[in-house]
Amino acid sequence: VRLDRSVSVGRAEAEALDIDDELAPFRGRFDLGDPDVIYVDGNSLGRPPLSTATRLQTVVTEEWGRGLVGSWESWIDLPRRVGDRIAADLIGAERGSVVLSDSTTVNLYKLASAALDAQPGRQVIVAEAGSFPTDAYVLQGLAAARGVELRAVRPDEVEDALDGDVALLALSHVDYRSGSLVDMGGLTAAAHRAGALTLWDLCHSVGAVPIDLAGDEVDLAAGCTYKYLNGGPGAPAFLYVRPELQPRLRQPIWGWFGQQDQFAMAGTYSPAPGTGSWLVGTPPILACVAAEEGIAVIAEAGVDRLREKSIRQTSFCVDLFDSWLAPLGFSLATPRDPAERGSHLSFRHPEAWRLCRVLIEQLGVVPDFREPDVIRYGLAPIYTRYVDVWDPMDRLRQAAEDRLWETVSTERRRVT
Amino acid sequence: VRLDRSVSVGRAEAEALDIDDELAPFRGRFDLGDPDVIYVDGNSLGRPPLSTATRLQTVVTEEWGRGLVGSWESWIDLPRRVGDRIAADLIGAERGSVVLSDSTTVNLYKLASAALDAQPGRQVIVAEAGSFPTDAYVLQGLAAARGVELRAVRPDEVEDALDGDVALLALSHVDYRSGSLVDMGGLTAAAHRAGALTLWDLCHSVGAVPIDLAGDEVDLAAGCTYKYLNGGPGAPAFLYVRPELQPRLRQPIWGWFGQQDQFAMAGTYSPAPGTGSWLVGTPPILACVAAEEGIAVIAEAGVDRLREKSIRQTSFCVDLFDSWLAPLGFSLATPRDPAERGSHLSFRHPEAWRLCRVLIEQLGVVPDFREPDVIRYGLAPIYTRYVDVWDPMDRLRQAAEDRLWETVSTERRRVT
Repeated sequence: VRLDRSVSVGRAEAEALDIDDELAPFRGRFDLGDPDVIYVDGNSLGRPPLSTATRLQTVVTEEWGRGLVGSWESWIDLPRRVGDRIAADLIGAERGSVVLSDSTTVNLYKLASAALDAQPGRQVIVAEAGSFPTDAYVLQGLAAARGVELRAVRPDEVEDALDGDVALLALSHVDYRSGSLVDMGGLTAAAHRAGALTLWDLCHSVGAVPIDLAGDEVDLAAGCTYKYLNGGPGAPAFLYVRPELQPRLRQPIWGWFGQQDQFAMAGTYSPAPGTGSWLVGTPPILACVAAEEGIAVIAEAGVDRLREKSIRQTSFCVDLFDSWLAPLGFSLATPRDPAERGSHLSFRHPEAWRLCRVLIEQLGVVPDFREPDVIRYGLAPIYTRYVDVWDPMDRLRQAAEDRLWETVSTERRRVT
Repeated sequence: VRLDRSVSVGRAEAEALDIDDELAPFRGRFDLGDPDVIYVDGNSLGRPPLSTATRLQTVVTEEWGRGLVGSWESWIDLPRRVGDRIAADLIGAERGSVVLSDSTTVNLYKLASAALDAQPGRQVIVAEAGSFPTDAYVLQGLAAARGVELRAVRPDEVEDALDGDVALLALSHVDYRSGSLVDMGGLTAAAHRAGALTLWDLCHSVGAVPIDLAGDEVDLAAGCTYKYLNGGPGAPAFLYVRPELQPRLRQPIWGWFGQQDQFAMAGTYSPAPGTGSWLVGTPPILACVAAEEGIAVIAEAGVDRLREKSIRQTSFCVDLFDSWLAPLGFSLATPRDPAERGSHLSFRHPEAWRLCRVLIEQLGVVPDFREPDVIRYGLAPIYTRYVDVWDPMDRLRQAAEDRLWETVSTERRRVT
C-alpha cells in the first residue's frame, strides 16, 4: 500500500482492504466491548477473547469448585504446557525451554542474575538507554547490588559497547516508545563474539512479530502475555532459557515449584531439570488459564500471517500520517522501513498529551500517551480492521486541524 | 466440647452443634461443588466464594472488555487496596504496610534479602528445620548466594539459637505438617533482644487465627491468599513491612510498579514511599480480584469468630480422634492445647498414604497427605459444618477398622 500523497485517502479504501483481509474473521473471536470506541492500544493491553470469560467460569466452577485440590493434577503442568505452546507457536524455541511464570520484571531479575553469576570475570551489563522502565530498573538494582557497571547506550552504540568485560547484553526486541524493531540475530551474534550472554525482552513484539530464538541463538528471554497475546491485565509472563545453557545457569529465587520431585517435600533444594527450575511459587491458575486462551487465538491465526497484516496496516497508517499529520506539525518517531518496526506507531507532537485526552474523551479513540510528547497507535492485527486505522487517523487529523487540544486541561492525569 | 471417651459420639451431637453455629450462614456464600464430597483440605486450597465467578465475569466483560486500558485507573491501586483490607481485618497491621504482590516465595525472597542487607555485620539466618519447603528453599538460596549461615533448628531450640550473629529469624506461624501454632510475640521479642529481625510466614494461619503484627512488633511477614482466604488456586500473596523499618529496607527486585511516580517513566529507579516500593511488575488483575472476593468474606465473618469456631471444631475432632482413632494405631501430631494449634489436624499412621487414597477414591472425603505418614484434616471454619468433622472422622475410623488400605496400591501418585 502506498498512497498518492497529493490526495486525501477515502475511507472506502480502508473498507476495501478489510474485505480482502483473510484474518478478518478472527475479530469475531474477541469481546469488542463498546462499539463506539476504536481501540488502538492493544500494544498496552490486548482485548479479551470471547472464550476467556467462559473458560474462567469453567475453571472456577468445575475445576476449582468441584475438582478442588485434586485439580492440581492438571494445573501443576500448566506453566510448562503454556510455555511449550509459546515456544512452538510464537517464539521459535525448543520444547521444554519456556515456562509461564511470575511477572516480566521478576523473570528479568532471575535471568539477568543467573547470567551474571555464570560470567564471574565480567563486570558490565550493556543495555539501551531509554529502555522500558522495568527493564532499566531491574538492571539498575542488580548492578547496584553487585557493584557491576550498567552501560546504557544508544541503539547505534550497542555494538561498540560490547567488549571483553561485558557479561550480558539486555535489550528490548521492540522499543516501547518508538516502536523500533531491533536486529535480534545480528546483535546476539555480536554479543557472542564478545563472549557476552544475551537477554531479550519480547513484551512489545511477541504475538505481532515472528521471533526465532533458537535460530538466532538467543540465550535468555522474557515477555508478557497481556499485550498482543491478549492474556488479560497483568497476565503472567514467560521466560526462555537456551537448553544448552540450562546446566550452567541457576536462578536465585529457590522455590517449591522449582524443586525436583516437588511433592517429596525434601528438606534441601535440588532444582528440577530444565526450565522447570525457573519456576518459583504456586502459579496463579486463574491468570494462567486466561493467558492460555489469549495465546491460543494468536497461535491459531499464526504469527507470520499476523505480521503480514501488521505491516500492511502500519504502512497504511504511515501513508495516512504523511498525507494528513506531517503537514500539521507531527513527526513520526517510528522507522519507515516495515522491517525495522513492530506493530505500533509513535507520533510526536508538542500537544500530544492534550490530543490524547481529546481522542479519548471526545472522539471515541483510545490510543496511549508516553512522556513527553508521544501518541502511540498500537495496531493489533488480530482484531484491528483497516477502518480502525483510517478512523483514528482521520480523527487525530481533525483534532489537530481544529486545535481541539485547547478544549482540555494541560494537567497530567495518570494514564497507562 | 469434651466427649465422654467411653462412648461413641453420635452424629446427632454434631448436628446439634451446627444448629447453634452463628457462622453457619456463611457456608451459603460458597460454591459447594459436589454435594457428595466432604472437603477437609481448605488449609491447602480454599473453596470458591459464589461471588468470585460473578466478579470475574464483570471484570472480564466490563472492566477489561469495555473499560480496556482505562480500567488501570482503578486497577492500579488494587494491590494496596487489598493490602489495606488484609492489614486492617486479618493481620493487625498498620494502614499502608501491606501489599498484594507476587507469590509467597518471591515475597519471602524480597523480604529476607532486604533484611540481610540491613544487617551487614550479621551472618546467620535462624529458621525451623522441617519448615515448609518453599520457606526452606528460598532461605537456602539466599544463604548460598551470600555465604550466610542458615541455622535450621528444632522449634524448642529457636531461642537458644538467637545470638549476636543472627540477622534474621524466619519462621512459620503455623507449621504446615503438624499444625502447631508458634508464639509469634514471644519469639519476635526474643529475636529483637538478640538484635535480629523477624520474618513470619502466615500462609497456614491467616484467616483462621487472629494475628497482631503491630502488637507483636513483627518486622516482616508474607502469606498466601488461597488457603483459608479462598482466593483461588495460586492466588497472589501479600507481604508486610513494619512502617518504621521501611526507610531502612530496600528490596532487591526493582520494578516499574515499585517506582515513585510510575508513569513519569523516569530513567532512574527511585522507590515509591512505603510498601509501594515492594511491588515489582504488573499485578495479575484477574487473580487479584478473585483474592479480594475471598478476603472480603473472611473479613465479614471476622477472624475472632472464625477462631472460636475453629477451636471448637478442632477440639471436637481431637475428641473423636481419641475415641476412635487412637485405639486403631493413629497418633496425633498436632498439639492438644487449642492455643498451640491452627485450624488443621495431623494424624500419623503407617498406612497414611493408602488411607488417604481410600478416603478420596472410596469414601467421598478429601483430606491431604504429607510425607511420610501424615493425613491432614483442615477444618476451614467459614464453610465447614460440625457434621463435616464427624463424617470424615467416622469414615477414617471405618477405613482403618476394615483395613481398606489393602484395597489400593502403595504406589505414590502426585497429590497436592
